[in-house]
Amino acid sequence: MRIEKWGYVFDLIINEAWKYQFLTYPNPAVGAAVIVKNQIFTGVHKKAGEPHAEVHALWEAYRAFHDAPELYTSKEIHEYLKKHHNGFFNDANVYVTLEPCAHEGKTPSCAYLLKELKPKSVSIGWPDPIKGHGGGVEILKNSGIDVKILNDKRCFHLIEPFIKWQNRFVFYKLALTMNGAITGGYISSDESLDWVHNIRDKIDLLVIGGNTVRIDRPTLDARRVNGKAPDVLIYSKNDGIERDIPLFNVKNRKVFIEDSLEKLEDYKFIMIEGGERLYNEIKHMVDWKVFIVSPKFANRFNFRSEDEFEILHTNQSSDLIVFGR
Amino acid sequence: MRIEKWGYVFDLIINEAWKYQFLTYPNPAVGAAVIVKNQIFTGVHKKAGEPHAEVHALWEAYRAFHDAPELYTSKEIHEYLKKHHNGFFNDANVYVTLEPCAHEGKTPSCAYLLKELKPKSVSIGWPDPIKGHGGGVEILKNSGIDVKILNDKRCFHLIEPFIKWQNRFVFYKLALTMNGAITGGYISSDESLDWVHNIRDKIDLLVIGGNTVRIDRPTLDARRVNGKAPDVLIYSKNDGIERDIPLFNVKNRKVFIEDSLEKLEDYKFIMIEGGERLYNEIKHMVDWKVFIVSPKFANRFNFRSEDEFEILHTNQSSDLIVFGR
Repeated sequence: MRIEKWGYVFDLIINEAWKYQFLTYPNPAVGAAVIVKNQIFTGVHKKAGEPHAEVHALWEAYRAFHDAPELYTSKEIHEYLKKHHNGFFNDANVYVTLEPCAHEGKTPSCAYLLKELKPKSVSIGWPDPIKGHGGGVEILKNSGIDVKILNDKRCFHLIEPFIKWQNRFVFYKLALTMNGAITGGYISSDESLDWVHNIRDKIDLLVIGGNTVRIDRPTLDARRVNGKAPDVLIYSKNDGIERDIPLFNVKNRKVFIEDSLEKLEDYKFIMIEGGERLYNEIKHMVDWKVFIVSPKFANRFNFRSEDEFEILHTNQSSDLIVFGR
Repeated sequence: MRIEKWGYVFDLIINEAWKYQFLTYPNPAVGAAVIVKNQIFTGVHKKAGEPHAEVHALWEAYRAFHDAPELYTSKEIHEYLKKHHNGFFNDANVYVTLEPCAHEGKTPSCAYLLKELKPKSVSIGWPDPIKGHGGGVEILKNSGIDVKILNDKRCFHLIEPFIKWQNRFVFYKLALTMNGAITGGYISSDESLDWVHNIRDKIDLLVIGGNTVRIDRPTLDARRVNGKAPDVLIYSKNDGIERDIPLFNVKNRKVFIEDSLEKLEDYKFIMIEGGERLYNEIKHMVDWKVFIVSPKFANRFNFRSEDEFEILHTNQSSDLIVFGR
């Protein structure tokens, strides 16, 4: 019995959860899996208010073996599973990157759902880090479920933005070619541009350098995904920015032009987009850096910096999205 | 029953198999998993002559639930499992990126092993592409196992080098920083350097540009992993290369200095290491490109090219290893 039986499953659900990193704001990114009837089903939390990761996984598993209605809200799925599970999960193993929630918030408690479904085991990647939360482990243990807590650092990295959102989380986003060029029109794929717009729909504040605004004349909204536009702070020593640049004409947005970063203190989830000068000025102040690397080389100068970071995770689509710290 | 139950498992085993891409030469890179007793076990083929992926996975699964001896050779494990399985795998589901082998080569046939263990299902990512091989699917089907063939393109990418090795496979390897600098000492992590030496131990021929040899004065062996050193072709318009450069003093190696690439026709598995000039001259002639991207920025000029490629896979360690085509 020398084998770490959960290791492989966590590789998988951590990967799945990162696909929705930042998009779950203000909730944590979480991945889960259920193995039942010798088949594996995964689930991720995609958006605040929608079902939690473990609920998606349990529901996928249940529906693979039963005729069941189409249900979408967390409350409906919880209630249906509690009523109809009929012991289906009793020999199942459940895996979740974060301790199942004990409290009833926008969605009902996952720990109480698991208590009723009573799988054989629940393996948990990282305990709930928020004071006053937690308690999920006790609920599961008290109901006789075999609970393992892994303290897998990768599961902690996954929720680091969530922990910082309690106060403030700031990341720098930079799109570049494989040889470090950042200029010359759209570098990233449509898929990555959609991803950026999805992120803009979630953040509170977008910080951008004055030079980038002058040169690129951007809109900085989330039109590709019909999302909301974040407030914008143009960080610039002097104003001199033409007001016919599209970003000024977006509804329900505040635009600040300031030569300090004090405004960041009024926001919780902040993305910085900018060029070399801005990066080099504030690279030490951001929590994370996110690089969108396109699989191409351009015959142009590179982005210059002296910097080093740790790769936390890489999402691979047509581009690479590299999360670093 | 609308759910593709195998999708998640293939994400996982494809990732695992890529960790040994190139190292299995002349065999294909293959990943496998077994789900039994609601637990998942994976295996990968690591090296020619060692057990195949599905054998590793089956053996891991078996040993998690039985006291069994330490066995290492494929033959021993096949024989032990055939003798002692006692129906253990009959409700298991097996997943493998490549059709299980039907023929007895250096190792016994995996299809015949599976036939005797008789799992409930075997899901296969890609059929055996080599003429005269194949037949694994028929053996499994005839024994009443539920066989699914996925034709998952990602499983094909995994074995593309293997298919080309039947004739010749050539890839360009380039290490760079996040902003495209390739000069300035060792860029890559120890982990990546070990990986490069592991690859050098497997390739037949290493091609390098004359300028790189003159400037870097490299050894180009596999000393970090006690491996064999590949033959070297220094591709140079004129000789003028000092013979006290360490690469000339490596045992059991041939060194060619030539102004043509004809020598490549004598080899099957070829890596090209070099700089900007060589890359731009032959970028259209190589099968794959492999980039080792370090999570740092350097205040130096970038590698210049006009090029675009498709990302086939990315291995993430402390660096990124990006396989492109």
